[in-house]
Amino acid sequence: MRTYKITIQYDGTRYQGWQRQQNTPDTIQEIIEKAISLWAGYAVTIDGSGRTDAGVHAKGQTASFNLAGKVAKSDFLTKINQGLPSDIRITNVELVKNGFHARLSAVAKTYCYQIDTREKPDVFSRRYTCHHAAELDVCEMKKAAGYLLGTKDYAAFTDQKEDKSTLRSIYDIDIVQEYDKIYLYFYGSGFLYHMVRILAGTLLEVGDGRKTAKEISDIIQSKDRKRAGFLAPAQGLFLQEVFYHKASFLRKDRISQEEAE
Amino acid sequence: MRTYKITIQYDGTRYQGWQRQQNTPDTIQEIIEKAISLWAGYAVTIDGSGRTDAGVHAKGQTASFNLAGKVAKSDFLTKINQGLPSDIRITNVELVKNGFHARLSAVAKTYCYQIDTREKPDVFSRRYTCHHAAELDVCEMKKAAGYLLGTKDYAAFTDQKEDKSTLRSIYDIDIVQEYDKIYLYFYGSGFLYHMVRILAGTLLEVGDGRKTAKEISDIIQSKDRKRAGFLAPAQGLFLQEVFYHKASFLRKDRISQEEAE
Repeated sequence: MRTYKITIQYDGTRYQGWQRQQNTPDTIQEIIEKAISLWAGYAVTIDGSGRTDAGVHAKGQTASFNLAGKVAKSDFLTKINQGLPSDIRITNVELVKNGFHARLSAVAKTYCYQIDTREKPDVFSRRYTCHHAAELDVCEMKKAAGYLLGTKDYAAFTDQKEDKSTLRSIYDIDIVQEYDKIYLYFYGSGFLYHMVRILAGTLLEVGDGRKTAKEISDIIQSKDRKRAGFLAPAQGLFLQEVFYHKASFLRKDRISQEEAE
Repeated sequence: MRTYKITIQYDGTRYQGWQRQQNTPDTIQEIIEKAISLWAGYAVTIDGSGRTDAGVHAKGQTASFNLAGKVAKSDFLTKINQGLPSDIRITNVELVKNGFHARLSAVAKTYCYQIDTREKPDVFSRRYTCHHAAELDVCEMKKAAGYLLGTKDYAAFTDQKEDKSTLRSIYDIDIVQEYDKIYLYFYGSGFLYHMVRILAGTLLEVGDGRKTAKEISDIIQSKDRKRAGFLAPAQGLFLQEVFYHKASFLRKDRISQEEAE
């Protein structure tokens, strides 16, 4: 038995999120499992690095799974991609150590949240941005981002219902403005349910003046979801990259490791 | 009476091209004319800088029209954009001299042709690229581009049926490679029916070895459409920018004038 890791790019628009569900076949996990199982000739289950919500996209989602035999990389990519719809693409496959698990072995993750501040969104990226037609105060947003960093209890920034730890680490938040678009990059140990979208919503409310950067400390301390910002829409969110080595993460490249190769 | 020029961005995927037609309401010209007429309260006809085919996109199409009164720029943009679908957006409106005509006053145009050479196209740009899974010899394509420049009879590079002049000037062709994507930029006085797509198809055939750069002179001299390359698909083509002043064109910026402001 051998363990493999795949890297996956998907346009989440028409899916009910990553995780397999009983009441719909439209999940990315199920579609990929079916394609790999059909190719392998036996049932294969894959473990993603984490769930993404309905409508959320990925440039570098990862998943791990076990196969009985060895895989020829380019043949695998060709065959599996042929079996997948045009909005899901496996970009890489690699043999990893036995015991590797896409979620449990991950050390960090990057998400990107894309905002279009035009009165009417750019027609070519409209499916992949959150439309927020306001002049945003990027300096104030950067200040607010500063307050959000560190290892903290982010209970105010999640819609998690279960009684599990809400302690997480946010290593960095980069805010990049390009003409009328703003990109928020979140680097962290891992993120709670809805956390990145609530962080994005909170930063948007700081940007448009509904909140100030200084309020952020209070919001964190309150542990009260109602004090944080709105849940920013799924279509602006991308799971950018999942890191398995501290060193590669610290390079913090905005382009994915694969593209840089 | 005042004459206005608008700049338009559109995702051409679901349209039957720019030009108004009797048998379909799905043309960009008709949809914009209806929105402006509804706003003005009387019928307004617009003249585009040129037709784009079904499925072709635009980042900087232009059109001119006459209005009875004066227009407040931001109010006009807000109102007209509200009346347009999400895949058509007016990016600018400006008062121009009487007698200005979007097509007749134009001095140059830029088109961009986008190619994805991956085995399976990038999921986020798949609607806007021509999928050509081959390793392309970009050096040979650049040589071929050199043979295509100048003021020449491009009869071999058009599907034009009418007996009109096929003399045109191509000022420059830039070929830019970024990872697995290749962008072809065509700068010219104006282009014949299907000309940019046939030029792109010809360069693709040079890139994948079906043709050589040296053959280009013969193909031009033959004036025979069958000698040139295939008609590259519409979805990879963008009308990038229309120039009305020689000086602005000579700057040859790849980002549009508007974005640079």
